Amino acid sequence: MTMEEKTMKCERVYEGRIINVRVDTVELPDKKYSKREIVEHPGAVGIVPITSNKEIVLVKQFRKPVEGVLLEIPAGKIESEEEPAICAVRELEEETGFKTDNIQQLLKFYTTPGFSNEIIYIYIAEDLKEGTINPDEDENIETIKIPIEEALEKIKSGEIEDAKTIVGILSYLNLYDK
Amino acid sequence: MTMEEKTMKCERVYEGRIINVRVDTVELPDKKYSKREIVEHPGAVGIVPITSNKEIVLVKQFRKPVEGVLLEIPAGKIESEEEPAICAVRELEEETGFKTDNIQQLLKFYTTPGFSNEIIYIYIAEDLKEGTINPDEDENIETIKIPIEEALEKIKSGEIEDAKTIVGILSYLNLYDK
Repeated sequence: MTMEEKTMKCERVYEGRIINVRVDTVELPDKKYSKREIVEHPGAVGIVPITSNKEIVLVKQFRKPVEGVLLEIPAGKIESEEEPAICAVRELEEETGFKTDNIQQLLKFYTTPGFSNEIIYIYIAEDLKEGTINPDEDENIETIKIPIEEALEKIKSGEIEDAKTIVGILSYLNLYDK
Repeated sequence: MTMEEKTMKCERVYEGRIINVRVDTVELPDKKYSKREIVEHPGAVGIVPITSNKEIVLVKQFRKPVEGVLLEIPAGKIESEEEPAICAVRELEEETGFKTDNIQQLLKFYTTPGFSNEIIYIYIAEDLKEGTINPDEDENIETIKIPIEEALEKIKSGEIEDAKTIVGILSYLNLYDK
């Protein structure tokens, strides 16, 4: 049995700076119709930067949608036509001031496939060298370095509560050949 | 230094069935103005159902935003005023046919705090008993059971690519007292 939902109509309801929103009318496998609200996003990268002492570099940033300061791995959205790996190297330096040539994609995932196509590519960055911090004009970012075990504790305690950061730390610990 | 962004204006651009979208004009700490696009979501639960044989129950579902069938933990959005734990027990039975009284919250996280307030509560469900499958009218769901180690392999291979499912499996393996 196919599970596919055929698009019968597609209505764009919002065009923005980072996201667009559309409502698709779909035909379900049983031929009934339903509506799907879809947030279109260009995709993003998240970087797990690991120092020679096995510390992870994290950034603190105010996130308006949740009205709070979150502790996250460095990240940023992909500019049009940009390779995710190039984007990762760029965002790492812009947000943390660290440069590297040693970057490896670990996995990719959909943040919330029920209502958005956003995909995030997770990279491990090692052999970090000093570069130049240069955040976007509307970004206010603080950087911290903590042992990777402490980052795991912060997931357990609820101090880290961002999906890409939890995925990045746990997949570094479980899936990456160190 | 405060990182907070003060809301100067708030414009609702879309009201939908599951999501609303608004654009906030904010004053940054340096007094400059910027815009934030925000997708409002009621929040959701994801359940990691573990059988007595240490198998995990997963569901396959077509996800229109990514135009593909994804392998996910059972999940669903929180109805208004509903306790997340009640929602988790309800969604588990509706989607998989399994009932339980043994459900524990493991963690909660924001799926994509850069543009949405969506929060997901992750529960571990054990002592599963047979109940009655009853998916939403517009949901087509298949259920599978696999050993938890195989689920980890499927994250590594890229076959599992949904954030809440990756967080659920890795946090069950790393953070849960078994």
